[in-house]
Amino acid sequence: MPQYTPPLRDMQFVLHELLNVVDEFKMIPAHAEVDADTINAVLEEGGKFASEVIAPINLSGDSEGCALDRSTHEVTPPKGFREAYATYVEGGWPALSCDTAYGGQGLPHTLNQFFYEMLNSANQAWTMYPGLSHGAYEALHAHGTPEQKAVYLPKLTSGEWTGTMCLTEPHCGTDLGLLRTKAEPQADGTYALTGQKIFISAGEHNLAANIVHLVLARLPDAPAGSKGISLFLVPKFKVAADGSIGERNGIFCSGLEHKMGIHANSTCQMTLEGAVGTLVGEPNKGLAAMFVMMNTARLGVGNQSLGLTEVAYQNAVAYAKDRIQMRSLSGPKAPDKPADPIIVHPDVRKMLLTARAYAEGARALQAYTVLQLDKALGSDDEDERKACEAEVALLTPIIKAFFTDNGWIATSHCMQVFGGHGYIHEWGMEQFVRDARINMIYEGTNTIQSLDLLGRKVLHNNGATLKAFGKKIIDFVEEEGVNEAMQEFVNPLADIGDKVTKLTQELGMKAFGNPDEVGAAAVDYLRVVGHLCFSYFFARMAKIALEKQASGDPFYKAKLATARFYFAKLLPETAGLIRSCRAGLAPLMEMDEALF
Amino acid sequence: MPQYTPPLRDMQFVLHELLNVVDEFKMIPAHAEVDADTINAVLEEGGKFASEVIAPINLSGDSEGCALDRSTHEVTPPKGFREAYATYVEGGWPALSCDTAYGGQGLPHTLNQFFYEMLNSANQAWTMYPGLSHGAYEALHAHGTPEQKAVYLPKLTSGEWTGTMCLTEPHCGTDLGLLRTKAEPQADGTYALTGQKIFISAGEHNLAANIVHLVLARLPDAPAGSKGISLFLVPKFKVAADGSIGERNGIFCSGLEHKMGIHANSTCQMTLEGAVGTLVGEPNKGLAAMFVMMNTARLGVGNQSLGLTEVAYQNAVAYAKDRIQMRSLSGPKAPDKPADPIIVHPDVRKMLLTARAYAEGARALQAYTVLQLDKALGSDDEDERKACEAEVALLTPIIKAFFTDNGWIATSHCMQVFGGHGYIHEWGMEQFVRDARINMIYEGTNTIQSLDLLGRKVLHNNGATLKAFGKKIIDFVEEEGVNEAMQEFVNPLADIGDKVTKLTQELGMKAFGNPDEVGAAAVDYLRVVGHLCFSYFFARMAKIALEKQASGDPFYKAKLATARFYFAKLLPETAGLIRSCRAGLAPLMEMDEALF
Repeated sequence: MPQYTPPLRDMQFVLHELLNVVDEFKMIPAHAEVDADTINAVLEEGGKFASEVIAPINLSGDSEGCALDRSTHEVTPPKGFREAYATYVEGGWPALSCDTAYGGQGLPHTLNQFFYEMLNSANQAWTMYPGLSHGAYEALHAHGTPEQKAVYLPKLTSGEWTGTMCLTEPHCGTDLGLLRTKAEPQADGTYALTGQKIFISAGEHNLAANIVHLVLARLPDAPAGSKGISLFLVPKFKVAADGSIGERNGIFCSGLEHKMGIHANSTCQMTLEGAVGTLVGEPNKGLAAMFVMMNTARLGVGNQSLGLTEVAYQNAVAYAKDRIQMRSLSGPKAPDKPADPIIVHPDVRKMLLTARAYAEGARALQAYTVLQLDKALGSDDEDERKACEAEVALLTPIIKAFFTDNGWIATSHCMQVFGGHGYIHEWGMEQFVRDARINMIYEGTNTIQSLDLLGRKVLHNNGATLKAFGKKIIDFVEEEGVNEAMQEFVNPLADIGDKVTKLTQELGMKAFGNPDEVGAAAVDYLRVVGHLCFSYFFARMAKIALEKQASGDPFYKAKLATARFYFAKLLPETAGLIRSCRAGLAPLMEMDEALF
Repeated sequence: MPQYTPPLRDMQFVLHELLNVVDEFKMIPAHAEVDADTINAVLEEGGKFASEVIAPINLSGDSEGCALDRSTHEVTPPKGFREAYATYVEGGWPALSCDTAYGGQGLPHTLNQFFYEMLNSANQAWTMYPGLSHGAYEALHAHGTPEQKAVYLPKLTSGEWTGTMCLTEPHCGTDLGLLRTKAEPQADGTYALTGQKIFISAGEHNLAANIVHLVLARLPDAPAGSKGISLFLVPKFKVAADGSIGERNGIFCSGLEHKMGIHANSTCQMTLEGAVGTLVGEPNKGLAAMFVMMNTARLGVGNQSLGLTEVAYQNAVAYAKDRIQMRSLSGPKAPDKPADPIIVHPDVRKMLLTARAYAEGARALQAYTVLQLDKALGSDDEDERKACEAEVALLTPIIKAFFTDNGWIATSHCMQVFGGHGYIHEWGMEQFVRDARINMIYEGTNTIQSLDLLGRKVLHNNGATLKAFGKKIIDFVEEEGVNEAMQEFVNPLADIGDKVTKLTQELGMKAFGNPDEVGAAAVDYLRVVGHLCFSYFFARMAKIALEKQASGDPFYKAKLATARFYFAKLLPETAGLIRSCRAGLAPLMEMDEALF
């Protein structure tokens, strides 16, 4: 069974040495008192919960899956999941970054994101039960009525209840404008919802006393398409104004999906038969309200793949040090053994270092992004709030798509390190690969992310947001331009920065001629910009490591080695991506549809 | 449930228009009479068997898996597998390319390889039951005693019995020199084998009356390491000299592996407890004899991923034409529908065309390679036999590793086309991904293939074999150098050819300094050479398509579009691979083992 050790040292490096979060938090009134000891203590305790409580039930949960009782419509998650959730609630973990007005601890999202990385490493399927609640919490917090907030937010904050996002229907996922679920207004101001939803994560389970479904549906007079969608709050059990639970509502699980992975999470087909709901936000503005959940969720999905990359890496390293097989091509390295440990082989190291670099790059970029989110939500400077918000919007699709594509590559590499054993369930490595695969699909496929990045976030304002982020990179390059030791990092960083600038301009011109050029280029483009971000953070981390390596702490030596590996072996991928990107639309459209 | 249509037109194009196999077969005495009608009839009938008999039990087989009765050690494959195997035997399919001396039909391997592509598309797990027999047949045919051949080859040819390869043990897979299974000589000239084998595909089942295990083991006086391994024939049921089946032998299935995919194939832990075996080939020369099976098997594994790529492509195309979601960025393409079919979106086309190009490139390269194998086995010109043998040896690791890495990419892309539905078992797409994953591991991991290519096949003779193959490419480029219409294909082909030449020279120099440089470069190098091969065959196919497009047959239009897509969007990957390759060993070795 896989093991998991929370990467506390690297997290602390990112928080305290790379980002100086304590100083940054001082500029955010609500977090001004958050100190390093608090941060470190939360990470340490959170790491214990992840590694001791939910990691041990990850493999068994995958084997066992969820069970639906068709007579009662109740779903039973795998053994140990309910108990683990109770422990989670007792520990106060759901409240970590929630509003103190509703019983939350009000800690920064940055901290919660690190906590979730550990949960995802330990058990992605389990983590989705509480994880979906965050989206419901955010949407209600932003768009709920005072009554909805008063009743529901304390329960979501405490974890007594969980939440879901009910968007997808059999015929529509990406294109929610096509959805058909209907909401009929009732005399008492509520709505009666009828329809069929699919792929509802944590849609039904017995972990919590109630489930708060946020459901997209159409009002009778709604305009066609995405401008006629409204958001409704539909609880599993009806709830009185005092928060007490009443009778069962007409929303129930009509089937469980049989999936490639995340077997232990109940992915439900949900049937609504006159389910009573209340409106969240304005009529026909449901999609905008839902996007509050979606953006949080997209950062969360990137974090899932970061978590899987880290845990797959740790286990592949342990195996590569232990497993002996063949001799090093340059002569025996463990002459006392019948063969060398496979970590001596260069390609085994390449697979391991790929996972390591993707994890460390992601950890830095994500922490930076969520710190900007904390500023966007809490700074008392409006200009800063806006600038941070724009940067988070820019980086969110990169975190979602680049991290999850990398997670697929990394978990597959780590599985490969195990040879044939990697393909066998009991080792747990193939589960990481299967679990990682959904992250490229849900909360907007990675193609959708790339269109969001290139179309909406970059070209929409003529690259202004990208330029603002790029300015930070240019400043760093200029600062380090005279630093001899940093040349190996800033030169490739400057180079990829120039290439992104040029490529963006070219694509802007092309898109002007034919909007489909955006669709042709977007996926390659996102990956190139992802590498620009990683190059920037690896260069910044290398600077710190160079300054501190004389301390003798081997952590800095390892950080430098990882950064050098990244620039030498992973960044070069951009050379091919840029060429493919430049090849444009024509090679994709030449084939007549009938000839496929 | 996925559908499968045998790609007969493309197969015929490769056989008759690209390779002119009928003319080639005329130069091989044993195949001189094989005509186009025979070839086409075999493909058509074989395609019917694949699509009508075994494709329908692929998804159900994955769900059901195999069952081991621990009291009897008998394994029951999923429903329908036994009946399908009986149909296969009745149809005479096992005998297709077997020696007529043992009841075979003596048809070329080239034809059998196409037949197997269709079987693999239809049901990889089922196909492994008869598929492993081929390796056993080849090893016995090459190294068996006259008695072994007389008894066993007719049964393997008819399919009455199946075969296995028993190599791997829990502590050794790649490094067979470490194996421990013992063979004690008995007074009657047989051997008593004792030990534990794992990952034995089709190791136990009820499809055939007997199973012929080829087992690697050590004689008591054997030298340590790989020079002390011998090959033994160990039947499930003991066999009399007249071929009649006797009592149960001491080799049995002690456990079934629970795997990521190929659930319907029984992957067995096999225990040998004094099992009676006979020696195959010379004592202590077992590894060499086993390599006869292994080389066949490696071509077979590449073919598995070709099969999966094709079937995944077909189903993704059908879905992309049917599923409507969003509008084309350049304006509605199906204004009569509420949304456009997703095949209008450039990135959906990119995913589909990637799979298509990988399938068509693989089909051409594989057919060419197996045609060289037919010549190596059957030409009456010894020089040609040797040259062909060397070329097959060169191309085999490329077929194994490049095809299976591509198959992983392609099946994953095709699954992605389905969005969330791709992750759901009932659609069958995620099964293709899970099944494809083993192909990168077994019969020598893809890293091992790359070391075989760069170390043994290329650098070992100073690139002589590669140069001989490269000469064909140079000749083609020179021939087409004056052909205006071919410039778009031969220029990038010439360019990648030059790059491979240069890179190979560089790596040869580096390897001279440090053999670990081979291990650092090999995986990137193999992928670059794979692209050189695909570029060559796409250019050759484009030449034919250009010549024949005036016929109005849309097949040629589609072939040109696929070739153009390949050069524009897939070949550019080599730019990054070459840079990564050049970055060499140092970035992989800087990290101390303890710091991982």
